[in-house]
Amino acid sequence: MKSALDHLYAVVLAGGEGNRFWPLSRRTAPKQFLRIAGRKTLLQQTLGRIAPPLPPGRVVIVTNRAYQHDVRWQLHDALRRPDDIHLLLEPSARNTAPALALAAVHLLCHDPEAMMLVLPSDHAISPVSALWATIRRALPLAAAGGLVTFGIVPTEPTSAYGYIKRGAAIKGRGYRIAQFIEKPPPAVARRLIRRGGSYWNSGLFLWRAATLLEELSRHAPGFVAPLAAMERARGTRGEAAAVERAFGRMPSLSIDYAVMERTSRAVVVPARFRWSDLGSLTALSELAPKDRAGNVVVGEVITLDTADSILYGGRRLLAAIGLRDMLVVDTPDALLVCPKDQAQQVKAIVGELKRRNSSHYHLSHAETRPWGSFAVLEEGPSFKVKRLVINPRSRLSLQMHRHRSEHWVVVSGRAHIRHGSRTYDLEANESAYIPRMTKHRLENRTGRPVEIIEVQSGPYVGEDDIVRFSDDYKRVKGEG
Amino acid sequence: MKSALDHLYAVVLAGGEGNRFWPLSRRTAPKQFLRIAGRKTLLQQTLGRIAPPLPPGRVVIVTNRAYQHDVRWQLHDALRRPDDIHLLLEPSARNTAPALALAAVHLLCHDPEAMMLVLPSDHAISPVSALWATIRRALPLAAAGGLVTFGIVPTEPTSAYGYIKRGAAIKGRGYRIAQFIEKPPPAVARRLIRRGGSYWNSGLFLWRAATLLEELSRHAPGFVAPLAAMERARGTRGEAAAVERAFGRMPSLSIDYAVMERTSRAVVVPARFRWSDLGSLTALSELAPKDRAGNVVVGEVITLDTADSILYGGRRLLAAIGLRDMLVVDTPDALLVCPKDQAQQVKAIVGELKRRNSSHYHLSHAETRPWGSFAVLEEGPSFKVKRLVINPRSRLSLQMHRHRSEHWVVVSGRAHIRHGSRTYDLEANESAYIPRMTKHRLENRTGRPVEIIEVQSGPYVGEDDIVRFSDDYKRVKGEG
Repeated sequence: MKSALDHLYAVVLAGGEGNRFWPLSRRTAPKQFLRIAGRKTLLQQTLGRIAPPLPPGRVVIVTNRAYQHDVRWQLHDALRRPDDIHLLLEPSARNTAPALALAAVHLLCHDPEAMMLVLPSDHAISPVSALWATIRRALPLAAAGGLVTFGIVPTEPTSAYGYIKRGAAIKGRGYRIAQFIEKPPPAVARRLIRRGGSYWNSGLFLWRAATLLEELSRHAPGFVAPLAAMERARGTRGEAAAVERAFGRMPSLSIDYAVMERTSRAVVVPARFRWSDLGSLTALSELAPKDRAGNVVVGEVITLDTADSILYGGRRLLAAIGLRDMLVVDTPDALLVCPKDQAQQVKAIVGELKRRNSSHYHLSHAETRPWGSFAVLEEGPSFKVKRLVINPRSRLSLQMHRHRSEHWVVVSGRAHIRHGSRTYDLEANESAYIPRMTKHRLENRTGRPVEIIEVQSGPYVGEDDIVRFSDDYKRVKGEG
Repeated sequence: MKSALDHLYAVVLAGGEGNRFWPLSRRTAPKQFLRIAGRKTLLQQTLGRIAPPLPPGRVVIVTNRAYQHDVRWQLHDALRRPDDIHLLLEPSARNTAPALALAAVHLLCHDPEAMMLVLPSDHAISPVSALWATIRRALPLAAAGGLVTFGIVPTEPTSAYGYIKRGAAIKGRGYRIAQFIEKPPPAVARRLIRRGGSYWNSGLFLWRAATLLEELSRHAPGFVAPLAAMERARGTRGEAAAVERAFGRMPSLSIDYAVMERTSRAVVVPARFRWSDLGSLTALSELAPKDRAGNVVVGEVITLDTADSILYGGRRLLAAIGLRDMLVVDTPDALLVCPKDQAQQVKAIVGELKRRNSSHYHLSHAETRPWGSFAVLEEGPSFKVKRLVINPRSRLSLQMHRHRSEHWVVVSGRAHIRHGSRTYDLEANESAYIPRMTKHRLENRTGRPVEIIEVQSGPYVGEDDIVRFSDDYKRVKGEG
């Protein structure tokens, strides 16, 4: 006999922009793709929590189309069977309800009994055993048609989270939901905590895919026509285009607003795990150890009379004197200084940078690419200096630049170069010059990383001056 | 008839280490050599204040031997007849009394009537007309054998300065000195200000060189033998070595402690100029304009709810949220964050860095050299990337490296290269490779700066791997 676990699929939400983690996160490098503490990114950590017991074939990642290469690279970096994981690409960012509707439609094609475990890709959860103990506890409720949300026992009267007030108990496993209270003021939050029986809304869910679509159609009528259109297109030649059109017509709503706050089937199961949504930079406290004075210290830092602060250094020395409850986050191209209790205001800075169309909004100075990573070391009006790291057995696209020439100096490893119609190897301390309008390709055929200093020179050195002829990662113009 | 001005010499003190301006200042780049605001360094600004009415031939700069090239370069950069200025090199850093004794001995050789106007090279003074009005007022007092110190009317009860309490008036030009009060606590400072007749001790002086030596011998007996030894050596073959030995035997005392606080000839002349000793980073407020919220903002800075702070950005974006009276100073390799009222504590950080023999103590990431400047962009175990700027009509030494090869890419201007026995020019977007153990020289023969990206590669890439064969600036191994 099959158990509920045999129909369980993990749906990982990885399309978020993570503005609240600026300057660590950027438009092209949102929070889930960052290595904030430790060797793994938050997305990789999330996948690590589900890999056992669920095999990769039972994992679906929903992400924005713009992030597909980042996700693929992260899977290849962390998993042994990365291609078994299915990627669902949102044509545009449209909040959680459309993303989950898309996932539900996809799963029902393959398994009418599919159950969805919904996991954001940028939260901190531990220990894994407690996560799975909670999920197992919730499974019968979801199998019976409940829309399960996991509730976190509040530890402080924060206004940063939504609260869930529980109602009647169900089978000793969870509770009906009496009320959702969206981000209450501290006084209300305090009262909720004092009275007991309230939980933080974690953003983790469990339900049958069929239940979700039923309730979505019932409570959010705007989804009815797009869902029907997806259904009609199934198996036809124009399915992909139809799904894309339908997705674009779905209302941009959160799943809480579209379904959970309206349905009578909502159920809360108290979590037995520790959880944080890492909703602001102050969450760095939860990701890194503290010194004796209560400071979180990352990188080369000297402190003097400094306590309870977050000092997240980059590659430079950070000297902190006389700080209390301050947040300092240093990156190669941008630096943030603010009191910890104002970390949420980072959103306003990001908004301003977006308005200015600033590179500090879009780009991270050290960017991962499918083939490795690069960092911009220096930029002038007619030149740019980069450090490139090419992963073992990876290569960049076969490409050409209209406006810039490139000088390469290999500083470690052995690079394989295609240069026009020639090919040759470059060892450390060897260099090459690729004139503009010359087809070229950089490749690492060895088992250890190749490090190259690239000096670009020309009247225009923007990332979008690139013509791709062939690419292992099927990228288009301007994706670097 | 000659006036007192005909015997006036400016003695500029430029040997200080300026630890309190870290991270802007470093051991190899003290405060007086920094461009903190505007195009000129503090030393160049100081020279600009005396150039008229005193010709360069009447200016003596006393500096540490280690700084001689920096001083020479700054003179060449700012003056039309830089070689007319005489440099007196301290064999070691020994406080102000030995430096001024050395200057007095030097001046008396040339002019027995010499009067010394003593100016620190790292203070802010304005306007120049008021400075000279005050000097002219003081000249008769100094000519009559007074040791004149210039007193600043206090504007706040700071403990950062020494105070001078005036005594009886002299000829309507100044006052006898009733008492020196070294850095009094705020309550005492407030009382001094309330009662009136007290001044800040500016560190600017005026006296006859002969008077200084008389009073130094009288009140600081440790100077008698070294001064006599210098006198005896005058005109002999061994003069330079004798002076060096004598200098090393002088007590390491401040001129205030050695003479001013003990002599009966001390006189204070109230200054008519505005003055700051730029004694800590909070003095940046006095060097740069403020925004509406009272913030000093330098570089690319975004502020949100931030007031009365100093936000001295470097080449990166600085985002400040919710700051009050804070100091943030950003440089390419080190960053300081502290409340303004704790800026003096920077000394403790510098002390710690010195103890660790840290590069952040010794080196500035962007260093000036006689021929131009360089900045380290990136450093790895076996490579280093630099941006070099070579000034018009300047050249580096003819040199060779034992352990590293160098790759050069010219990104602007035209460089003239000596490479082994060959010479050639490199234009923008051209490159050269200089293997280790190959003599080479980089030169700019044009009228505009040359900018080069240099990638050093080899098992050792320290600055001291340099063998010089010929140098316009007479430098030795390891001076970069």
